[in-house]
Amino acid sequence: MERKTQLRESDMPRQWYNIAADLPTPPLPPLGPGGKPVTPDMLAPVFPMNLIEQEVSTQRWIDIPEEVLDILYQWRPTPLRRAVRLEQYLKTPARIYYKDESVSPPGSHKPNTAVPQAYYNKVFGIKRLTTETGAGQWGSALAFACQLLGLECKVFMVRISFDQKPFRKLMMQVWGAKCIASPSSETNAGRRFLKEIPDTPGSLGIAISEAIEAAVTDPTGQTRYSLGSVLNHVLLHQTIIGLEAKKQLKAAGEKLPDIVIGCAGGGSNFAGLSFPFTADKINGAKMEIIPVEPAACPKMTRAPFHYDHGDTACMTPLLAMYTLGHAFVPPPIHAGGLRYHGMAPLVCQGIVEGLFKPRAYHQSRCYESAMTWAKTEGAICAPETSHAIACVIEEAEKARQEGKEKVILFNYSGHGLMDLSGYDAFLSGRLSDYDLPEEELKKYTKDLENLPKAEMRKSGRW
Amino acid sequence: MERKTQLRESDMPRQWYNIAADLPTPPLPPLGPGGKPVTPDMLAPVFPMNLIEQEVSTQRWIDIPEEVLDILYQWRPTPLRRAVRLEQYLKTPARIYYKDESVSPPGSHKPNTAVPQAYYNKVFGIKRLTTETGAGQWGSALAFACQLLGLECKVFMVRISFDQKPFRKLMMQVWGAKCIASPSSETNAGRRFLKEIPDTPGSLGIAISEAIEAAVTDPTGQTRYSLGSVLNHVLLHQTIIGLEAKKQLKAAGEKLPDIVIGCAGGGSNFAGLSFPFTADKINGAKMEIIPVEPAACPKMTRAPFHYDHGDTACMTPLLAMYTLGHAFVPPPIHAGGLRYHGMAPLVCQGIVEGLFKPRAYHQSRCYESAMTWAKTEGAICAPETSHAIACVIEEAEKARQEGKEKVILFNYSGHGLMDLSGYDAFLSGRLSDYDLPEEELKKYTKDLENLPKAEMRKSGRW
Repeated sequence: MERKTQLRESDMPRQWYNIAADLPTPPLPPLGPGGKPVTPDMLAPVFPMNLIEQEVSTQRWIDIPEEVLDILYQWRPTPLRRAVRLEQYLKTPARIYYKDESVSPPGSHKPNTAVPQAYYNKVFGIKRLTTETGAGQWGSALAFACQLLGLECKVFMVRISFDQKPFRKLMMQVWGAKCIASPSSETNAGRRFLKEIPDTPGSLGIAISEAIEAAVTDPTGQTRYSLGSVLNHVLLHQTIIGLEAKKQLKAAGEKLPDIVIGCAGGGSNFAGLSFPFTADKINGAKMEIIPVEPAACPKMTRAPFHYDHGDTACMTPLLAMYTLGHAFVPPPIHAGGLRYHGMAPLVCQGIVEGLFKPRAYHQSRCYESAMTWAKTEGAICAPETSHAIACVIEEAEKARQEGKEKVILFNYSGHGLMDLSGYDAFLSGRLSDYDLPEEELKKYTKDLENLPKAEMRKSGRW
Repeated sequence: MERKTQLRESDMPRQWYNIAADLPTPPLPPLGPGGKPVTPDMLAPVFPMNLIEQEVSTQRWIDIPEEVLDILYQWRPTPLRRAVRLEQYLKTPARIYYKDESVSPPGSHKPNTAVPQAYYNKVFGIKRLTTETGAGQWGSALAFACQLLGLECKVFMVRISFDQKPFRKLMMQVWGAKCIASPSSETNAGRRFLKEIPDTPGSLGIAISEAIEAAVTDPTGQTRYSLGSVLNHVLLHQTIIGLEAKKQLKAAGEKLPDIVIGCAGGGSNFAGLSFPFTADKINGAKMEIIPVEPAACPKMTRAPFHYDHGDTACMTPLLAMYTLGHAFVPPPIHAGGLRYHGMAPLVCQGIVEGLFKPRAYHQSRCYESAMTWAKTEGAICAPETSHAIACVIEEAEKARQEGKEKVILFNYSGHGLMDLSGYDAFLSGRLSDYDLPEEELKKYTKDLENLPKAEMRKSGRW
């Protein structure tokens, strides 16, 4: 039995899978001002039209351009690995496989969409992309993609991360990007926030506002904004993960997995692995598909399904999603990539349908799982990834109790080499767990009453 | 044409290659007190006897134990990649291949020997290993190996790195090792240095002295010392790199490479890739084999071949090598792994023979090459690795000028994600180059006059 299942370049998928073609009930449309569905034209100042077309497409398969494949080949196909040493340690009859997305140069799954986004902007004649980044995974992925495709890139990095993670900033600079602390004096939004709270640590909400403003106010019209998760086209680009995994599981002698697991912040790494398998579940296959979130930021497990803005400053259209409210400020857990108030509408529609069963864990349990991983498999995982691993260990132990030979597949979304401070807190006993008090949840979601309701539409098949 | 050539576990080499069996003239023996050749018994308090046997072996092939293979499989076989985008950028007819050793959990080639060293100590009944580390690559690799094999590990880390690189220290702690700043108050040597210079930044020489002392003074006799380069058995373990590369080049449709390149600090990553190819050169194949060093620490290109100690405090036996003198303190270049005064005796004997032609570069040129690499291949390399890349680019440009379709192979010894401060210095124009003034070279090598001369023995075939 081989521990790694590799594909050749020539076996890499040439098309992305669009789950919008197969969901039994389509997700609710995004709404613009006045509660009317957003038209492609309304998004044109923010995104190039070719990406907007992908955003609204219901075509099942979408070709991956050759120039995009040419860059993805730098680290793809990624290996499918079997966690043999973890299995032995847990004495589980389960076979645990993971798709290793940590092997990309920026260290996570993020470049899977950064590269096509940079590419589509480039062919649309755009010269410059702006974006925001919290922990830095997304900012460095977009910097990497822009460097390889010859675009300029400006990243608004939440000030507290900018100050605490100088190495992330440096990665972006090595890839030629300009990385500035947000709030900055470069935008109206930034200046306003700086005036109101001069020593603010910043937030993802503010950084998004600045990045969008910087894009739409460029007088040359050659700048656009890029988002690293949540939107349909972003999730689409990530499906290459699950499509590869399917071929690899087959090559490893397995049929479909019994359980598919991914951590979920905005939803892109979870969707990337699980959507191609969800197609099988829609067609009748029996499978548990589990998105995992932090208990400190429990939108999928505790928040209402409602229309809400994607950013704090209410600049984005309204999306139908599980949301803690756009004004919600998640506690300072170490998994920065999971600190987002909402969830991708396509993932939410899957939850509404009953296709996905979300689960939440405290970060101390996740770090315990990460330590077990380091001790057995040897690698140091990202704090986000540790949430998936906590669920994997729970399911593998359950399989042992049940004496069942389950196949568990999860997305190893990134390594933790740039995010070791959480391990430090864990090892020195300084790690805190957070629970969202019910009254706080009510406070933040009360705002939603002023926004349109999202009707729960489901086929009732799950 | 595929960019990656992968091997299956079942194709991984099952034996290491020992070049001592094939060198036309054997290297000079290490000398102990009184200038007499060291006997295995004299090394027994420092290393376990099974590793000492490897150190003195002249057997060509040495079996890799199953338990070692079982751990190496966690990241091996490593991919052989072709740097297509760099080739295109340089418009070179050369085909550039690299062995990607950055994919190991600690991020470099170092665990290739850390794992077997921990294993042989374990089967010899040893419970605890001590070592020193400068930049931290070796310390984290040994911590990783000890964690997976269930040994305790104590790492003496040069104080200045300990303070400047908290993340390296954290990596070791995640893998269960104890990492302490050197000089420490735990050893006589450390206490003496601390008393003499209370605010000393420490040095590799002091840290080696402390690690050896901590091993040999353990009253239980269950502690040994472990070294990450220089010695024969360390280089032996690294030959798995070149043995894999040979199979992969063949699978990629190539014959032998025309040029083999590796950076060289103590010599282990260079030897690991090049020794299996050196065997072909000894047997008549035409090949240039180039170890690359920093101009700031030019032992191979400018220093005498002489007997010298491996450490500053003269605790180690005398080794016949190119050496800048054991008291030499290399300038603070960012490639910490190349800041060593000597070179592995087996590599030195190859240089004496004319099999290897060393080359030296300034670090600014190396960082320029690293930036070209990041821009084309997308990955951020270690400062050590950038020395190999500088040479690769020089040779690829030469191939273009000559219009020759050469095959260049190099060792991508590690990623630079934990060592980004050198990039910061380069990008902000604060990077200095260092040349060793002739008078300083003379000053440090004058000490060698009190030590036995090393006779240059060569076959004259190259």
